[in-house]
Amino acid sequence: MASDDVKLIGAWASPYVMRPRIALNLKGVEYEFLEEKFGSKSELLLKSNPVYKKIPVLLHGGKPICESLIIVQYIDEAWSGHSILPSDPYHRAVARFWGHYIDDKWFPALTGISRAPTDEAKKEAIEQVFAGLKFLEEVLEKSGAGKPFFGGDTIGYIDIALGSHLGWLRATEKLSGLTYLDESKTPLLVCWAEKFSAHEAVKCVMPETDKLVEFAQMLKAKFSAPPSK
Amino acid sequence: MASDDVKLIGAWASPYVMRPRIALNLKGVEYEFLEEKFGSKSELLLKSNPVYKKIPVLLHGGKPICESLIIVQYIDEAWSGHSILPSDPYHRAVARFWGHYIDDKWFPALTGISRAPTDEAKKEAIEQVFAGLKFLEEVLEKSGAGKPFFGGDTIGYIDIALGSHLGWLRATEKLSGLTYLDESKTPLLVCWAEKFSAHEAVKCVMPETDKLVEFAQMLKAKFSAPPSK
Repeated sequence: MASDDVKLIGAWASPYVMRPRIALNLKGVEYEFLEEKFGSKSELLLKSNPVYKKIPVLLHGGKPICESLIIVQYIDEAWSGHSILPSDPYHRAVARFWGHYIDDKWFPALTGISRAPTDEAKKEAIEQVFAGLKFLEEVLEKSGAGKPFFGGDTIGYIDIALGSHLGWLRATEKLSGLTYLDESKTPLLVCWAEKFSAHEAVKCVMPETDKLVEFAQMLKAKFSAPPSK
Repeated sequence: MASDDVKLIGAWASPYVMRPRIALNLKGVEYEFLEEKFGSKSELLLKSNPVYKKIPVLLHGGKPICESLIIVQYIDEAWSGHSILPSDPYHRAVARFWGHYIDDKWFPALTGISRAPTDEAKKEAIEQVFAGLKFLEEVLEKSGAGKPFFGGDTIGYIDIALGSHLGWLRATEKLSGLTYLDESKTPLLVCWAEKFSAHEAVKCVMPETDKLVEFAQMLKAKFSAPPSK
């Protein structure tokens, strides 16, 4: 499909930016990637998302669309071809529910582990991450019915919502020594993660784990260093 | 339209429960309202929403749908008639964005005012509420184009997302003495709030301000009272 003035404002390390990139790849839409410089916000970003001032922003014919899962739904509705959301209203609602859960509860628990002020809070956050993965294992078991993806035979909305976090999940595993995607606890998710990461629409935008680890260490050093004089 | 086994688990004072009630009224769908008792959670609620254990839950033919704005989208897709979301993908994305903003930023700022630990935090929360209303005034100006609702001539997605909070906004005004919907600051919103509240699909489910004030005072007394021996 020919591109009709599609631009995406983003950054390579953001899981939220991965989502519209995967959706555009699935639809076969060409787009220009406008990489934001770390630590600053471009004029275009500030103008395009004056409310949140956050990436990603999709610009389609100059019109901005914000919030990663809203962009994914927009891409699904604006371009034909590969269907990202199921066609049945009930299954669409279920997909939206898990997308919301991942953003509202699961990922905040994962990022909360390293920020937990006490050992008890840390333990609780880790438990929440595992509980979330258990929920999602059950969803995969039900919706997948022996198929590789949450979307069945093809990548769908929940695949994108969760799969975009795989890079940081692996980086967190490497940094903490904990295994979140554990064969003995959530075998279907382990298998899903491999298939998702190897998919043509995903592998070209999935950041390397070592690069994310390096990035996380740089961030940590930057924010724990005393201010320069 | 005849009801086909539609039930809604909710409570009268919840703005989130108002949303599916308004959507069902707009579609002309009859439903059974299952009121949760204050301070407890029914077996049906726990079974229907095991992840969040929260109202509202819509049960359609026994299948549960959770999260208020996801339920509203489901109602829009599952029943024909009155359209809640716009038909154009870009306008749908804009409506979803503002629905998200209201839940993610604006309403938390409003409820955060009374919980603010310092005067400075309180001032900041109040400023956020006014800034949000200013944003929404601009949206109404653009999308309404002289029409009464965010949805144009009829109630749409943003109307439901924001309008469901009008009861608590008025109760908060009465309790705090502050005027949030101010004719001199956001004249279109003041006019919109009146028209929205008087709409046939809304007025039968909009809680009375005095009843909400009484409810808020009961909650405050309950949670600030020393535990009974």
